[in-house]
Amino acid sequence: MTEVRIIGDKLTNMPWQEKPSGTAGPVWRHSNNPVIQRNPAKGIARIFNSAVVPFEGRFAGVFRAETINGRPHLHLGWSDDALNWSIEEERIAFVDEAGKPFQPNYAYDPRVIKVDGTYYIIWCTDFYGAAIGAAKTQDFKTFVRLENPFLPFNRNGVLFPRKINGNYVMLSRPSDSGHTPFGDVFLSESPDFVYWGKHRHVMSKGGQGWWQSVKIGGGPAPIETTEGWLMFYHGVTGTCNGLVYSMGAVILDRDEPSKVKYRSANYVLTPEEWYEELGFVNNVVFPCATLHDAETGRIAIYYGAADTYVGVAYTTVQEIVEYVKETSEEVADDAGIGMM
Amino acid sequence: MTEVRIIGDKLTNMPWQEKPSGTAGPVWRHSNNPVIQRNPAKGIARIFNSAVVPFEGRFAGVFRAETINGRPHLHLGWSDDALNWSIEEERIAFVDEAGKPFQPNYAYDPRVIKVDGTYYIIWCTDFYGAAIGAAKTQDFKTFVRLENPFLPFNRNGVLFPRKINGNYVMLSRPSDSGHTPFGDVFLSESPDFVYWGKHRHVMSKGGQGWWQSVKIGGGPAPIETTEGWLMFYHGVTGTCNGLVYSMGAVILDRDEPSKVKYRSANYVLTPEEWYEELGFVNNVVFPCATLHDAETGRIAIYYGAADTYVGVAYTTVQEIVEYVKETSEEVADDAGIGMM
Repeated sequence: MTEVRIIGDKLTNMPWQEKPSGTAGPVWRHSNNPVIQRNPAKGIARIFNSAVVPFEGRFAGVFRAETINGRPHLHLGWSDDALNWSIEEERIAFVDEAGKPFQPNYAYDPRVIKVDGTYYIIWCTDFYGAAIGAAKTQDFKTFVRLENPFLPFNRNGVLFPRKINGNYVMLSRPSDSGHTPFGDVFLSESPDFVYWGKHRHVMSKGGQGWWQSVKIGGGPAPIETTEGWLMFYHGVTGTCNGLVYSMGAVILDRDEPSKVKYRSANYVLTPEEWYEELGFVNNVVFPCATLHDAETGRIAIYYGAADTYVGVAYTTVQEIVEYVKETSEEVADDAGIGMM
Repeated sequence: MTEVRIIGDKLTNMPWQEKPSGTAGPVWRHSNNPVIQRNPAKGIARIFNSAVVPFEGRFAGVFRAETINGRPHLHLGWSDDALNWSIEEERIAFVDEAGKPFQPNYAYDPRVIKVDGTYYIIWCTDFYGAAIGAAKTQDFKTFVRLENPFLPFNRNGVLFPRKINGNYVMLSRPSDSGHTPFGDVFLSESPDFVYWGKHRHVMSKGGQGWWQSVKIGGGPAPIETTEGWLMFYHGVTGTCNGLVYSMGAVILDRDEPSKVKYRSANYVLTPEEWYEELGFVNNVVFPCATLHDAETGRIAIYYGAADTYVGVAYTTVQEIVEYVKETSEEVADDAGIGMM
């Protein structure tokens, strides 16, 4: 296969471990997982489903922190190596565009994406029901909330790391007001991050396998590659004892990202280790962020494990893109016109 | 009480009947209801939940036509008196913005609203699930579909009849993928009818009564009055044998229509007549359109009855606004900030 490259910045100080011999799939775990353990800071019971980004030579994290009263909020954290984290005890203080305090009632599953020099935090917020919340920061000190992009009910908002055809582009997973026994990924555009439209269907749950038969949802911000936008996502299957969350990978068209180019029929990571199998919610791997280096093609995937821990897994752009192409399947509606 | 006036055009030829003596509430039925009966045209089993508008001295209707294969589509109709209707046998032929045929898979519960000389048709469409569809026409001959304003799942899209603060304003009722056992009314704005945002919560289900305890949804386009935007809507209660749909009335702030000024604690019309109680879906009154005359303050409300017929009911702006103000209650969250 021809060389596949990441289109983006280099990131020399990102975490990395070579693939252990005998690894079955295209993704391998960090040897010292989980990188964030239970009770990681005062008042915080668990951290998982969280975002990390490079910032001024270090790494900033926006963490889903399950506080000891059971409600999730967003907390900031810092790290020099993106593996050992110092978590702030106070939750992120959001303000509205006039500078007045404006805290969400709850906040979970954050993604942080840098577009044109601004860091956007996208999370699941309470807007008379689960909806996508958004805020921006330049300095990880002041966090200004933006208009909620969509009506409820929605989760798993994922922003692309650059404008496409002049517009911001966001993926989301329309849902219901509960635990949502269904769900496909849609795409929306905005010229100004205030008004959103041109909604398109991107990916359906389903396929020949069962691991993504109940619902799917976007993961980390898509990574631009020479083959298209590489996105890790989560797929959910149902069992007699509840849901199981695995990680899949898909490649979207670079110019028309509502079009699926390749989509692996198989999961690329599924709960197998103790910290993925056992915790507050058993059997969950839930990717929310990556760090990646355009020079080497290395990718570190940050994922929530069992709604309790943060795990890191590795791959290279060459290995994962080859795998997705080799195991690609066409899922009903993925080739649809996007709008009906 | 001071005089309440409709702000708008006069409409001398609209249907009208004076209030019968002994009428209990502020709304009374047309004496010869239903105005559209079963099997009103070849291939159409039932017409209900439909829209009418004045057009060039006559009246145009966009009808929810349940075809004899059980799937709903939109059909055009014409009338001189807005009571006797001639329904077209062919469904409305929608095209996309390039002029290519672009039919929805199904279409139901249309509203038609004239804004700045253009007629907008808003309906529930299939966008990988129930969502708001939109089209425009100038002449009721060419119907051009527009971008779906919102992601699924959503129903009961209702456009305001003029821009407010420079933007189109639409109400909708986010829902789930099924029969939706919940639902509040939200408002969204758009500068261009392509991108929508500034979503706000308007009204909650609930209140002290039970008639709107399960869900609510917008009705006809709001009527601008000297007291605010008068809107009829539907409220739903649950029984051991299914849902019951009644009609309520609310007055929204003229400049900030996400703010409820007055909201009647009581329904203003509920299934009582045979054609409302019995049909394809028993016990439904579902308002979708009004005709109104600014000169006299007369209002004719078009409502679907039992998912089978079209009924007409009357009131005056003075009578209904007085009633809503006198019976107003504050429902939890209606006075909220609209965005969380």
